[in-house]
Amino acid sequence: MDLLITNARPMGAEPADILIRDGRIAAIGPDLAAPGVAVEDAGGRIAIPGLVDAHTHLDKSLLGWPWYVNAVGPRLIDKIDNERAVKKAYGLDPHLQSMRQVLQSMAFGTTLIRSHVDVDTEQGLAAIEGVMRTRQALAGQVEIQIVAFPQSGQMPRPGTAELLDEALAMGADLIGGIDPCAMEKDPKGHLDTVFALSQKHGKPIDIHLHEPGELGAFSMEMIFERTRALGMSSRVAVSHAFCLGFGDWQRTQGLIDTCAELDIPILTTAPASRDVPMVLRVTGAGVRMGAGNDGFRDTWGPYGDGDMLERAMFVGMRNNLRRDDELAVAMDICTTMGARAIDVADHALTVGGRGDLVLVEGETVAEAISIRKPRKLVVATGRVTARDGATLTAVP
Amino acid sequence: MDLLITNARPMGAEPADILIRDGRIAAIGPDLAAPGVAVEDAGGRIAIPGLVDAHTHLDKSLLGWPWYVNAVGPRLIDKIDNERAVKKAYGLDPHLQSMRQVLQSMAFGTTLIRSHVDVDTEQGLAAIEGVMRTRQALAGQVEIQIVAFPQSGQMPRPGTAELLDEALAMGADLIGGIDPCAMEKDPKGHLDTVFALSQKHGKPIDIHLHEPGELGAFSMEMIFERTRALGMSSRVAVSHAFCLGFGDWQRTQGLIDTCAELDIPILTTAPASRDVPMVLRVTGAGVRMGAGNDGFRDTWGPYGDGDMLERAMFVGMRNNLRRDDELAVAMDICTTMGARAIDVADHALTVGGRGDLVLVEGETVAEAISIRKPRKLVVATGRVTARDGATLTAVP
Repeated sequence: MDLLITNARPMGAEPADILIRDGRIAAIGPDLAAPGVAVEDAGGRIAIPGLVDAHTHLDKSLLGWPWYVNAVGPRLIDKIDNERAVKKAYGLDPHLQSMRQVLQSMAFGTTLIRSHVDVDTEQGLAAIEGVMRTRQALAGQVEIQIVAFPQSGQMPRPGTAELLDEALAMGADLIGGIDPCAMEKDPKGHLDTVFALSQKHGKPIDIHLHEPGELGAFSMEMIFERTRALGMSSRVAVSHAFCLGFGDWQRTQGLIDTCAELDIPILTTAPASRDVPMVLRVTGAGVRMGAGNDGFRDTWGPYGDGDMLERAMFVGMRNNLRRDDELAVAMDICTTMGARAIDVADHALTVGGRGDLVLVEGETVAEAISIRKPRKLVVATGRVTARDGATLTAVP
Repeated sequence: MDLLITNARPMGAEPADILIRDGRIAAIGPDLAAPGVAVEDAGGRIAIPGLVDAHTHLDKSLLGWPWYVNAVGPRLIDKIDNERAVKKAYGLDPHLQSMRQVLQSMAFGTTLIRSHVDVDTEQGLAAIEGVMRTRQALAGQVEIQIVAFPQSGQMPRPGTAELLDEALAMGADLIGGIDPCAMEKDPKGHLDTVFALSQKHGKPIDIHLHEPGELGAFSMEMIFERTRALGMSSRVAVSHAFCLGFGDWQRTQGLIDTCAELDIPILTTAPASRDVPMVLRVTGAGVRMGAGNDGFRDTWGPYGDGDMLERAMFVGMRNNLRRDDELAVAMDICTTMGARAIDVADHALTVGGRGDLVLVEGETVAEAISIRKPRKLVVATGRVTARDGATLTAVP
C-alpha cells in the first residue's frame, strides 16, 4: 500500500515523484524521499490515474475459448436469446470468464470497473455469484461494482424481479434496468420495479437505455419523474442514452439539462454506428460522464479487447475530438470523471487521491491514446498489479 | 518474383500451398512442389491478399517528428491553412515523409496505395515530385497511384489549374478535386476544370466530396452530369461521399443507383463522427467500394497508424458489422474490392491473381481484424517485403 514512483510525468506534465501511502497519494513533487518504501522508476513516462471501465459485462466474455463465429440475427432480442443459448451450450463459468476479462483489463491499466451482470430465470444468480467470487479473488488489485442486470427482460419473465431482489441482498451494488419500452414493453411496470428495489435496498440504479429518439426521450422522462418524486438525485445513472444524441437540438437539450439538474450521470461506449450523447455537449452542461468497453470477445460482436485507452480513442473518434485539449476530455472521461460518474471520488493524481496509476508511453496524453503501447506499470491502491502489459496474477 | 508459401489458410479456409511465379499466383493446392523456388512456411496462418489503402495522403505525415500538439480551429479551412503553415515552418520533405508512411503501411501488409498529393501555389509540385521519388524507390515492393490534389482549392487560387496540368504531365496518375461548392465556391468552374484536365491527359478522376446532405447531393449530380456527357463511366471515383449517408432514404438511393449505373466507385475512410456511405447498402447496389486510412500522424488529427486491418475494423464498427460474413465484406473492401475500386484487377488469392499476400494471425478473418497482431509476412508480387511487423527496407 506504500510505493514511491520516481520520474513520472503526471498527465504529461513536468517530471515528478509520486508517493503513495496507505493506498492514497501522499505527495507529488521533486526528489521525494521515503526510506523503507518500495521504489519504481517511471523513466520519464506519463502517469495517468487508473483507467475506469464504467460500463462492461464481466459475465459474457468468451476469452480463452475458440473464436466465436457470429451468425446472429439483427435484432436486440436475437442477440439476447442467442447468448443465453450459447452460455448453456458452452457451460460457461461466470467466475472463470470474469477472472479472464478482469485480468486482461487490469493488464491494460484498468483499476475500477462497473459491470452489469445478467440475472434471469434460466441461470438465476449464477453469474452474480461468479462475478462476486472474482471481486473477492482480486480484492485490493481492482475495484468492481456489480449491477444486477435483467438482460433478458424483467416484466416479460416472471420471477426475474425476485431474483434481482435476491441479488441485491447477496451483495450486488446497484440495481440495473433495460429499455423500459422496447425490451420490457411496460415502462411503468419496469421502472416502478427497479425504483422500488432501489428504495428497498438503499442501492443506486444504472439503467441500459438503447431506445433512440422520441422513444428514448419518453423513457428518459419517466426516469426523471421517478428520480425527482423519490428524491433520488445523484442515485440514478443511465447507460448508452442514445436518445441524447438525437437530432432535435432543443428536445435533446431539455433532456441533457434535466440530467444535470437531477445529477444523472451518463455512461457511454461511444459506438460508431449509433447516435450517441456528444461528450463535449453533455459534460459542458455539467453532467458527469463515464465510458466503458461494454462486452467484448462475446456473442454480441467482434470488437474490443478491454483496453480503456482504446475506448478513449473511440470516444475521441466518435465525437470528432482532434485537438490535444479535446483528447484530455476523453482521457478524463476514462479516468477521473469516469470514476466520479460511477460515484468514486478522488480518483485523480492529486495529494489525497486514490493510489491508482498507470505508466503509459507517449510524449503527451493525446499521443498515449493514439499509440496505445503496452502499459509499463499498473498500480492499484499503492500495489503493483501489472508490468509491461501483463498482470502479476496469472490468467486462469 | 517466384515464391512458394506452404501451409497457409487462404482467407481462413483449409491449409494449402500458394505458388507465385513471375509475380502472379500460379497455383493454390496441397503439396505443391517448385524446385529451386524460395519457400516460406506460413505455419497454418491465414493468408489474405495485400491490403489496399485506397485513400491516403502520403505527403502530410509527421512521422519521425515529435508529437504534433493539435490546437487547430474547427473549420476545414482552418485545417488546410494550418497545414500549409506547418509544412513551411518544419521544412517538411515530402519524399522523406512519404517514405516513412509507405514503409510503415507496408509493415502492416499494404501492397497497393492510392495517395492524394497536394498541389498548390505555395509549394508548387514539390510534393508530387517527392512522392514520385518514393514510388520509384519502392517500386516492386508496393504500388502507388498518385492523385494530383488541389487541397487548398483550385478556383480561389489562380495558377493551381496550371500546376495540376503540369503534375499530370510529370506522371501523376489521376486528377483530383475537392468540394466543388464548400471549398471551391464555384462548382461549375471547378468541375469543368477537373474534367477538362482528365480529358486532356486521358487520366481518371478522384474527387474529395465532404459536402453533406443536399449540398453533396447537388455536387454529386454535377459530377454525374459530366461523367455521362463525356462518356466517362468507370473513369470517375468519389472519395468520402458523405452525402450517400444522408438520412433521406429515397434521395440517397437515387444517388447510389446512379453511381452504380455510371460505375463510379466510392472510397471511404468510415469516420465515426460523420454520416457515411453504408457499405452493405452501397456495395449491395453494385457500386465498387474501397477504404483508406486518410492521413494519419499529421496536423489534421491524432488517430491511425496506417494499418488497413485497423481500418477494416473501423469500417466494421461504423457500419455495425458484427457477423463473420459481414466482416468478410469489410475485408473485401480493404483488399480485393478495394483494388477493383482503384482500377486494379485480379488482386485476389486465386490462380492468375497478383502475387501479393499477407500472413495474419487468427482463427478466422474476423478474428484477424479483431486482434490485429503484427503481420508474420508480407509479399508483394512474389517478393517478401516485411516480416514480423517490420519492413526489410529500413525506415529513413
